[in-house]
Amino acid sequence: MIEKARVAVVGVGNNTSALVQGIHLYRRTGHVVGVRSPEISGLGVGDVDVVAAFAVSAGKVGRDLHEAIFASPNNFPRLATDLPPAGVVVQAGLTDETGVERIAGLLGEAEVVLYSAPSGRPGIARAYAEAALLAGAGFINTTADPVARDRTLMERFEADGLPLIGDDLASQFGTSVVHGTLLRLLAERGLTLVSSYQVNLGGTEDIRNLVEHPGSKNQSKRNALGGDERVGLAPLGYLPHLGSQKVSHLNIEALGWAGTEVSLDVKLRVHDPSGAAGVNIDLLRVAAAARRAGRGGYPAETAALLKSPPGSAV
Amino acid sequence: MIEKARVAVVGVGNNTSALVQGIHLYRRTGHVVGVRSPEISGLGVGDVDVVAAFAVSAGKVGRDLHEAIFASPNNFPRLATDLPPAGVVVQAGLTDETGVERIAGLLGEAEVVLYSAPSGRPGIARAYAEAALLAGAGFINTTADPVARDRTLMERFEADGLPLIGDDLASQFGTSVVHGTLLRLLAERGLTLVSSYQVNLGGTEDIRNLVEHPGSKNQSKRNALGGDERVGLAPLGYLPHLGSQKVSHLNIEALGWAGTEVSLDVKLRVHDPSGAAGVNIDLLRVAAAARRAGRGGYPAETAALLKSPPGSAV
Amino acid sequence: MIEKARVAVVGVGNNTSALVQGIHLYRRTGHVVGVRSPEISGLGVGDVDVVAAFAVSAGKVGRDLHEAIFASPNNFPRLATDLPPAGVVVQAGLTDETGVERIAGLLGEAEVVLYSAPSGRPGIARAYAEAALLAGAGFINTTADPVARDRTLMERFEADGLPLIGDDLASQFGTSVVHGTLLRLLAERGLTLVSSYQVNLGGTEDIRNLVEHPGSKNQSKRNALGGDERVGLAPLGYLPHLGSQKVSHLNIEALGWAGTEVSLDVKLRVHDPSGAAGVNIDLLRVAAAARRAGRGGYPAETAALLKSPPGSAV
Amino acid sequence: MIEKARVAVVGVGNNTSALVQGIHLYRRTGHVVGVRSPEISGLGVGDVDVVAAFAVSAGKVGRDLHEAIFASPNNFPRLATDLPPAGVVVQAGLTDETGVERIAGLLGEAEVVLYSAPSGRPGIARAYAEAALLAGAGFINTTADPVARDRTLMERFEADGLPLIGDDLASQFGTSVVHGTLLRLLAERGLTLVSSYQVNLGGTEDIRNLVEHPGSKNQSKRNALGGDERVGLAPLGYLPHLGSQKVSHLNIEALGWAGTEVSLDVKLRVHDPSGAAGVNIDLLRVAAAARRAGRGGYPAETAALLKSPPGSAV
Repeated sequence: MIEKARVAVVGVGNNTSALVQGIHLYRRTGHVVGVRSPEISGLGVGDVDVVAAFAVSAGKVGRDLHEAIFASPNNFPRLATDLPPAGVVVQAGLTDETGVERIAGLLGEAEVVLYSAPSGRPGIARAYAEAALLAGAGFINTTADPVARDRTLMERFEADGLPLIGDDLASQFGTSVVHGTLLRLLAERGLTLVSSYQVNLGGTEDIRNLVEHPGSKNQSKRNALGGDERVGLAPLGYLPHLGSQKVSHLNIEALGWAGTEVSLDVKLRVHDPSGAAGVNIDLLRVAAAARRAGRGGYPAETAALLKSPPGSAV
Repeated sequence: MIEKARVAVVGVGNNTSALVQGIHLYRRTGHVVGVRSPEISGLGVGDVDVVAAFAVSAGKVGRDLHEAIFASPNNFPRLATDLPPAGVVVQAGLTDETGVERIAGLLGEAEVVLYSAPSGRPGIARAYAEAALLAGAGFINTTADPVARDRTLMERFEADGLPLIGDDLASQFGTSVVHGTLLRLLAERGLTLVSSYQVNLGGTEDIRNLVEHPGSKNQSKRNALGGDERVGLAPLGYLPHLGSQKVSHLNIEALGWAGTEVSLDVKLRVHDPSGAAGVNIDLLRVAAAARRAGRGGYPAETAALLKSPPGSAV
Repeated sequence: MIEKARVAVVGVGNNTSALVQGIHLYRRTGHVVGVRSPEISGLGVGDVDVVAAFAVSAGKVGRDLHEAIFASPNNFPRLATDLPPAGVVVQAGLTDETGVERIAGLLGEAEVVLYSAPSGRPGIARAYAEAALLAGAGFINTTADPVARDRTLMERFEADGLPLIGDDLASQFGTSVVHGTLLRLLAERGLTLVSSYQVNLGGTEDIRNLVEHPGSKNQSKRNALGGDERVGLAPLGYLPHLGSQKVSHLNIEALGWAGTEVSLDVKLRVHDPSGAAGVNIDLLRVAAAARRAGRGGYPAETAALLKSPPGSAV
Repeated sequence: MIEKARVAVVGVGNNTSALVQGIHLYRRTGHVVGVRSPEISGLGVGDVDVVAAFAVSAGKVGRDLHEAIFASPNNFPRLATDLPPAGVVVQAGLTDETGVERIAGLLGEAEVVLYSAPSGRPGIARAYAEAALLAGAGFINTTADPVARDRTLMERFEADGLPLIGDDLASQFGTSVVHGTLLRLLAERGLTLVSSYQVNLGGTEDIRNLVEHPGSKNQSKRNALGGDERVGLAPLGYLPHLGSQKVSHLNIEALGWAGTEVSLDVKLRVHDPSGAAGVNIDLLRVAAAARRAGRGGYPAETAALLKSPPGSAV
């Protein structure tokens, strides 16, 4: 039997909740419903053990991980009624860039550090990467902050035979991929795009932050849609009652043969944190396998799972 | 300047209306809005001349082609107010399988025969193919009736250096391709399909016939969707007010990571005859170029434009 | 404390399942979520006791009512995990018009008979009404078969001081009321209707029967929509995976001031049996109260809950 | 033949464009498609003459009204290709509260002043009302600024036998009325609202202003929806390609009998300026008739056409 991948998670938000609840469910049921890669290098979706967790909010630090994932403002649903304690106590994470050694000391047996905190604090993200290097662990940056795109850092991970994966997660299934797929299909078939729009609504703390501090995210969305001026992005809407659901409305107006109208309306409903967890589970197994094999640096096979892989603009 | 492809059309329904109106518009405007292949073997979308046309209804035979395309029950819209007479008079087509020589004699300079009559009369379709052979023209069968799948016939076209293309047109853009693309995207991303449905509504004579005599078409639709039992096909609806528009409602329910729900609703509105014309214009140019090059038989590059290419089940 | 209304149900299909499960839930929880009339003549939604039940299928007769409601082909969901036995055994109902006395004998203490079998057997419906008369019970006909529209029968119920309510249930909330409300709103505001359509999809045995034997129901639907030719009704679709859900797609195209376009698309999802039960619970209480007060005949206050009240065309 | 109502319009934006183009079209065609009140006090929709117009932008002042309505940023479509000059030159309007006498002098024969400038400048709105009083004309305030809610002003109009109508226009047909109607229908039927949202998208200058300076309008929207916390309002989206179209997405989640789910999704597409013009045409005719009859003050029959009639909170 393969040794389980040992993981430290930084950030105990909705995405971590979806990840650890999913691992529990898949272990219990044995099925692989909703799973992209049932096995990666011999590791199944249940073969990942969270051995350490870090957070900064008072409501999470000091509690068992399987309790902390339900602390406010988390609102990803409780999927299993029988979730036992994780046996992992959430520890105080970094609030500034000092404390790298302390974190390294707490990583223990972790093979991989999954950085799953909110975007927007690149210094903190890099401090955790330093801690991983120090402790001999791989590192995955799921935020938009540039970590894997930092060439010096990448070279140091390479030199130590440790994987460094990032930056920014592409969701397993979400609005961008559906919208992009439909726009590409139209173009392949020779239709002429007239206009398109996308509206996104959700109820997580992440979305509340983005609504209150818009900017970079919208730009990254626009980039994902090819920067086409005919594709409009309506402002993100924060609707608390949606909880961790994301609802999107898409419209595409195009012209076909002889200029006749083609019109396409889509409503999509997903759980955002599931989209993240469904990709994280793959990145974690790639990273663990790479570290075990001594493959340092960036595992190119993860490119499709990332929005800004090494080499993209910072 | 390249010599225009000379085409005989069999059937003066909505699809022929969309084809000849589109050719006129593209010639007049010079643009290529909604066009899949601006050029094929040097032939632009305006480089196709209809030199003969056949129909059976009293309202069409004997009239100029550019008038006949607006005769009842055709309801594809009039796109240009300035459509001049075509200079081609619609001739009486076959009502049974005799008369092959007569048709061959009327094909004149035609390089390609486009068979665009309603499905369901395989004998008639084959009689026109015989006429094309006799007159030295290529043949395109856009119906579901087996013509290009008839090996003996294919060998005779090969032997004569004449192209034979078919069977059954895949629309340039329609419900099947959107539904199929979304289902494939889900599968690629590891989502587990729970259920899906498709409802199609339209207002053409074709759709009225299918509603009154269902069967084969639904089966072919189901095949296009992969024969998955979880994908339901609601009965086709005939709503005269839709005219040549086709409206479809799709729903997809799936499970993502940890079994969380993903739901996708799509409304699609297209003009069915435009979807046919947008593919016919490509098949015609491939066929004309093949005949000029003496390439007989089946041009494999058309496979993606057909629902039942040679080799599929009859 | 008020005496509970004592009811005999004829037909143990999805509608009866929704009714008895709902009564159980409201009693247990005490809330009135989704309830139209929390109290009628002092009777709450929990103040209805089913004291007898009749069915004809072998899978239902002889079983406790709370088991029989889950027997195939019923597919209304199990709402409560803790449903205790009803203490009422389903008895063999009528298969022809003889046996009125036997049924009357089995009605026992029932104050009201709720006729909730499939439409299409008017003789059977009337036989149950005769049994109710004989046993001194009121009668509610939820089918489209003419019972309350039979003047002679109505006079006999009146003479005996027994209520007779029917015919045909208007759902608590469904496609017809939403479509009708929106069409009326448009008209009130002076918009000019161009076209409209309605597509209905569902997965119950009822819907399967209607798909296989269309006709009368579609006509009644059309009547409900005002018989306007511009309002199209697409064929009903049977999609087993929908279970007892009904999904509808509506479209309305209209013209506003200066002939500018107004367009409205609606998707509606409901549980059909809940729509029936939510009205039956009101009819039952009205009937029980009327019988107790000696008010025989048709209680006019139920007109809004019926599709074909006395006086409508048979 | 009735004497036409003589009107002065203040503001030459999209709403004025819709109004004057509509009047032209109805006169030319004689039909009443999309009209709420074909006749009011003997005045048809074509019986309104614009005799004076005021604007402040350099691109509009000095031009014929039928040209000025197409000046940027107006983007309501050109509905008729044959619109003749109006014979009315747009005059320089007020930019501050001085100049009441000048405006009064320019009103000439106008019986009614229609104030159709952007909301947010109550002093200017009141100055025009003063000018109307001085010139002996009625006044209609279509903005949210308090004019008709000013009791002193109302008393002065009453004393002079001049009508004063306002404040804030309720659209002939738009998102608020559809959303409100559906929420009321649910409540009437006893369904329990779980959550609802509304997203509005548009491409006019008005919407651009609201997106850049949100606040009061959203509050007024929320009031229109009954201030229910379960009804969420997503941020307004400015999508220039929509032009004067408004697109809205509504969702309603509710519970029916026994707590089963009811779900309703709506997409609505209208032309906002048509919604305004379709109500203005009624207010103008009511006002002209009231003035002719010497009925001063507030004509109560206009309450349903206004969002904040006299007596509502300022």
